[in-house]
Amino acid sequence: MNPIMLSNLRPLTLLFFLLYTSTSLAGQPTTLKGMDHMKWEKVLPGVWKASIGELQLNALDYTSPPKTKAIEELGDSPFPFDISQTYHHRTPTRIGIRLPLAEQEKIYGLGLEFQGINRRKQVYTLKVDHYGGVKGYTHAPVPFYISSKGYGVLINSPQRVKIHVGVSNRKDSQLPERVDRTTGGNKWAARPLSDAIEASAIGTGMEVYVFTGNTVLEVVQRYNLYCGGGVLPPKWGLGFWHRVHTQSSDQDVYQEIADFKKYNFPLDVIGLEPGWQNFAYPCSYDWDESRFPKPEIFVNNLSQQGIKVNLWENPYVAPSSSMYTSIKPYTASHTVWLGEVPDYTLPEAQQVLLQHHQKKHLDLGISGYKLDEVDGYDVWLWPDHASFPSGHDAVEIRQLYGLILQHTLQEHLRKQNKRTYNLVRSSYIGASDKSAVIYSDYYKHKPYVTALANASLTGLLWTPEIRSAESPEEWIRRFQTVSFSPLMMLNAWYSGTKPWSFPEVTDMVREVVVLRKRLLPYLYTAFYDYQKSGIPPFRAMVLEQGFTAKEQLTAGQLDGVDNPYAEQQRLEVTDQYMMGPSLLVAPIFTGEKSRTVVLPKGKWYNFYTGQYIGDGETITVASKLEQIPLFVKDGGIIPMIAAGEDLNSGSPKLEVRHYGTKVNRYLLYNDDGVSYDFEKEQYTITELLVERRKNGKLEGKRKIKTANQNFKFQDIDWKWMSANMK
Amino acid sequence: MNPIMLSNLRPLTLLFFLLYTSTSLAGQPTTLKGMDHMKWEKVLPGVWKASIGELQLNALDYTSPPKTKAIEELGDSPFPFDISQTYHHRTPTRIGIRLPLAEQEKIYGLGLEFQGINRRKQVYTLKVDHYGGVKGYTHAPVPFYISSKGYGVLINSPQRVKIHVGVSNRKDSQLPERVDRTTGGNKWAARPLSDAIEASAIGTGMEVYVFTGNTVLEVVQRYNLYCGGGVLPPKWGLGFWHRVHTQSSDQDVYQEIADFKKYNFPLDVIGLEPGWQNFAYPCSYDWDESRFPKPEIFVNNLSQQGIKVNLWENPYVAPSSSMYTSIKPYTASHTVWLGEVPDYTLPEAQQVLLQHHQKKHLDLGISGYKLDEVDGYDVWLWPDHASFPSGHDAVEIRQLYGLILQHTLQEHLRKQNKRTYNLVRSSYIGASDKSAVIYSDYYKHKPYVTALANASLTGLLWTPEIRSAESPEEWIRRFQTVSFSPLMMLNAWYSGTKPWSFPEVTDMVREVVVLRKRLLPYLYTAFYDYQKSGIPPFRAMVLEQGFTAKEQLTAGQLDGVDNPYAEQQRLEVTDQYMMGPSLLVAPIFTGEKSRTVVLPKGKWYNFYTGQYIGDGETITVASKLEQIPLFVKDGGIIPMIAAGEDLNSGSPKLEVRHYGTKVNRYLLYNDDGVSYDFEKEQYTITELLVERRKNGKLEGKRKIKTANQNFKFQDIDWKWMSANMK
Repeated sequence: MNPIMLSNLRPLTLLFFLLYTSTSLAGQPTTLKGMDHMKWEKVLPGVWKASIGELQLNALDYTSPPKTKAIEELGDSPFPFDISQTYHHRTPTRIGIRLPLAEQEKIYGLGLEFQGINRRKQVYTLKVDHYGGVKGYTHAPVPFYISSKGYGVLINSPQRVKIHVGVSNRKDSQLPERVDRTTGGNKWAARPLSDAIEASAIGTGMEVYVFTGNTVLEVVQRYNLYCGGGVLPPKWGLGFWHRVHTQSSDQDVYQEIADFKKYNFPLDVIGLEPGWQNFAYPCSYDWDESRFPKPEIFVNNLSQQGIKVNLWENPYVAPSSSMYTSIKPYTASHTVWLGEVPDYTLPEAQQVLLQHHQKKHLDLGISGYKLDEVDGYDVWLWPDHASFPSGHDAVEIRQLYGLILQHTLQEHLRKQNKRTYNLVRSSYIGASDKSAVIYSDYYKHKPYVTALANASLTGLLWTPEIRSAESPEEWIRRFQTVSFSPLMMLNAWYSGTKPWSFPEVTDMVREVVVLRKRLLPYLYTAFYDYQKSGIPPFRAMVLEQGFTAKEQLTAGQLDGVDNPYAEQQRLEVTDQYMMGPSLLVAPIFTGEKSRTVVLPKGKWYNFYTGQYIGDGETITVASKLEQIPLFVKDGGIIPMIAAGEDLNSGSPKLEVRHYGTKVNRYLLYNDDGVSYDFEKEQYTITELLVERRKNGKLEGKRKIKTANQNFKFQDIDWKWMSANMK
Repeated sequence: MNPIMLSNLRPLTLLFFLLYTSTSLAGQPTTLKGMDHMKWEKVLPGVWKASIGELQLNALDYTSPPKTKAIEELGDSPFPFDISQTYHHRTPTRIGIRLPLAEQEKIYGLGLEFQGINRRKQVYTLKVDHYGGVKGYTHAPVPFYISSKGYGVLINSPQRVKIHVGVSNRKDSQLPERVDRTTGGNKWAARPLSDAIEASAIGTGMEVYVFTGNTVLEVVQRYNLYCGGGVLPPKWGLGFWHRVHTQSSDQDVYQEIADFKKYNFPLDVIGLEPGWQNFAYPCSYDWDESRFPKPEIFVNNLSQQGIKVNLWENPYVAPSSSMYTSIKPYTASHTVWLGEVPDYTLPEAQQVLLQHHQKKHLDLGISGYKLDEVDGYDVWLWPDHASFPSGHDAVEIRQLYGLILQHTLQEHLRKQNKRTYNLVRSSYIGASDKSAVIYSDYYKHKPYVTALANASLTGLLWTPEIRSAESPEEWIRRFQTVSFSPLMMLNAWYSGTKPWSFPEVTDMVREVVVLRKRLLPYLYTAFYDYQKSGIPPFRAMVLEQGFTAKEQLTAGQLDGVDNPYAEQQRLEVTDQYMMGPSLLVAPIFTGEKSRTVVLPKGKWYNFYTGQYIGDGETITVASKLEQIPLFVKDGGIIPMIAAGEDLNSGSPKLEVRHYGTKVNRYLLYNDDGVSYDFEKEQYTITELLVERRKNGKLEGKRKIKTANQNFKFQDIDWKWMSANMK
């Protein structure tokens, strides 16, 4: 019996269910003292939900509805672990849950973490804050974790979830053998093996969701699809972003653009920092007329050159703002930097913001925002005891603030059929459909790459933006990483560094930026897959089949591993990641003469040369200053804008590369790049097919797969990267 | 009108009071939106209390009753700040308070902090944990702060108090001028000046106490006296402590003691680490018969040599313990290191522990315990959502666990008229009467000294115990510090280092240990003052008159300062402290060729030479490897055991030193050193009087001031340290 969907059971069946849940199949008593069994309801194939009490703020109210059809296409599967071992309990102020955990199970996720990937044997306090200090304090502490057994759990709470990931042992649970520490040597464990994940949060309500999958990637897909699928950014969002000094005037920006032309660097988005406003920290959101006397003309001038404008802002309203009087009734008890804190859970407050921004920015052609300071610290933001006019708890509002702002702006622009792409300092549950990329002040290069990988596990996008460098080497290494990230941005206005500030590497910097821009057809298609199927365009290696010991993880079965230690080492590889279906990115860090790359099973090839480099093994590659190591899996088809083409052309000539020896098929996506018309089938999909001719040679074909042909590519050059190799 | 003691007011007066509190004297509206005025009740002269809701666990239930008479002797004073500006509010899960703060006010306290002393412009989450990570996470996060205006505030909550010390601004409070960050330069503040201290905690109840004082020291005294006064340790507790390897047997300990004799080092207490038990982590509390086949004989053997035995333990009970079955019904839902966690809020659980310990340890002559692992981390201790049989919240029990254990053991021994002196890893509110000294794994030397100073501000004792050293220099520097601390202990069993392990400095180490032992009459008297008047024997410099700019702080008045910046610098001096009434200790740290010492106003003299060294100024002293810099204030009278005397004699010959030129008077305390008979006037006080003869020479006299003469010192040699100096 599948003891699911209690509401559909007849009384006798229900009685049987209750008996069943109080004794496990092995005959052990399974009722834990003071805890109640959780009641699960199946909401979609492979998706279950249990509710405890009543949620106040609900993050899922700020996401798009589930992509039901896509979830159904992933198929169904049984509840992925022992349902009789799921518990909850309540205290006057707290709700706790307990879910089973097997001995070899590995746990990933929990949001934007900058260290490691296996979350087991740690306690995380999932708090929206700057990164560091306490485990779980980060810009996007998503209470969603993934098990190597092939399921994911979302703890939908607007409070700070404190989660014990396989650490802490109930006395009435399965306890490991006790060892005397004095004589027990290495057998004694400071963190004894635990048979559960336990979590709790202050508050009156909590929802728990379980998502299954045949692979870890499918679990992520299901979670993302349940939250509306992934975002498809406008094409310009995937170009080159540059932020100018906070005190820049329109003339300064024109000069900066002229410099970009002079040095022959592409430029797609200009970001204006706080000083575009006549008051900042807190913000007026009104143009500083001394710097930007005619913002409409300024934005239009840039638009003529194909350059979008992005505006920095934080959410705290200065009394001098033209929206101050309107927003004041909807603000919190406390200020931030002496500015009012709008309660954006109130539609009235949202309307004040949107009306102001529409008139002052969006009507002028502003493309989006950089939503700063929505994350922490406690010494900056409102205290936990602040009160808000909606009556919502101050902690809950802080936890969701970044998410709510993203949602509010995005839905507003959606009504105008305009896609946007923003920057944001905090995010939370269900963010995969949000057109915003997270950034941070923490500036260590290697942890930035780890964050890029971890972001993919919980519906987030992350940019390792560049702020400064201590050497030409670091400069090019940072550019290489950011060029293979969701948002390629130079944010060096404070340090004053320009792309060409280190002449020794200027050509290399330009080269990698151009390479990224040439990869747009491939990357844009990867984002389409994110949107449609929930497959993150940038992915941690554990989401790649053939990376873990077992090619296919079977839901409900333990990941069989020959050498758990080696496997563990392999899993902790967080300094490489996947971009799109077939590209493995392995950044080099300053000072490294070489690096190891852990290859998933299957043959892999050098992106630049097409050379075979290995299969399921750990290789060492020598570093070249001018190249970020990139590898392509056997049969990988990579459509790029052909060399020398106009990078911003709507329908450029393509170079389609094929790697290795496998025949393959690739569905190339294209659309208008700016609107939501793609939701009404206004897009073109071109099938790129690699077949083997009778003479043994590979051959490339293409075929339009959609009725709509408006966005097809005219010219395609096939390039057989490994044709002359074995 | 003094709007205090509402219960005593007649209806008309009460009405006036209510009107008064809703408008300040300046006519400004003082009611803040969503907050209620606090209702204060005067409980003792200079002590007020306001209750909000109902407390669950109450730390004050684990302290001795207030020393009412001593508090009355400190005199009365009005409520120390604007009572109309005190507020509270409640949410379904949280209680918040708001108290006024003046622009120049400085705030000290908040427990065992290892950094700095002025707590302003920070947010502290006061959580019992290992030190570090988040501000306020520490072994003894006491929610008591002291204002430079001459008052203290205790937030009596068993939950983790989150306190915003002059940071965060309500929109309906006095806000400073807003400055545009882009153009405002240094005028812009990331943490704008706030006019309040705001704090909150989860839970249903909170008590707030206000303590006044004419000086900061008096505030501390009143707080300590309200919590039962300071502890008077047994004399042996102030001697030399040494902990042996966890796997030591009785024979190993005998050898260790023989080595101490061979190297001519004093030894007062031997500490046994986990392995004295037959199971540890969790604990059996039962002797390991293979190591200690006859514990009774072992303890007795040591006792014959004047050596006490202290037993390490943590509170988590192993199934193999002889008290396991009895304690099991009173344990929590979760284990720690797979051991049961007793609910020591239950008298039944306390009784199991006491009966076991009495029979197995105390009856044998065990002197006390080292109560380890009562502090953190989250990955080790029970989770916040654990449940306890008493029904108390798991967070509250964790916050008070160390305090409750200290109290339970101490009160048990008090009934037997035996003083004890213990080590403990966590403490909390109202700990001044506890016979336990806190220690920590954090091992940085300078922050250890800061902790020693800060401990004095919130009723704590702290030992900078020695674990290891990287050089002979560090070894002697660490010994010098610990010799001038509440508990002189070598805890180097893990590193295997002995006092004589660095032969280059062995003589110096012995010398400073002997000096500390010779200072016992002075130090023991200082502890008597702690017990009687609440004056901490080791004190932060801010508790010393003449250290801050104004000699006498007047309650309710702002500390007038000529140069706030210089004053601020001076206040942040935390690497020196006072021991007893007249000794200033300024430890040298490894690598320092010299150090600066900030002298309070008045003349100061070199302890070793009697030489004048300065007055209210900052001096630089060259470091000498063999000496810790010690300075004595003008007129300082320091009774010491005379050189060459038996250091453990009950009534040794004394050398009484006098420094400088001032006439003075000193009350020398003595008693049996072990029992509570001193509470029944079984002690002797000898007045040591320094007068000036007609010929201008100083003369020393003594006079017994108590009826009891049993504990007088027979021989006294006066030593005029500065007699030949100007």
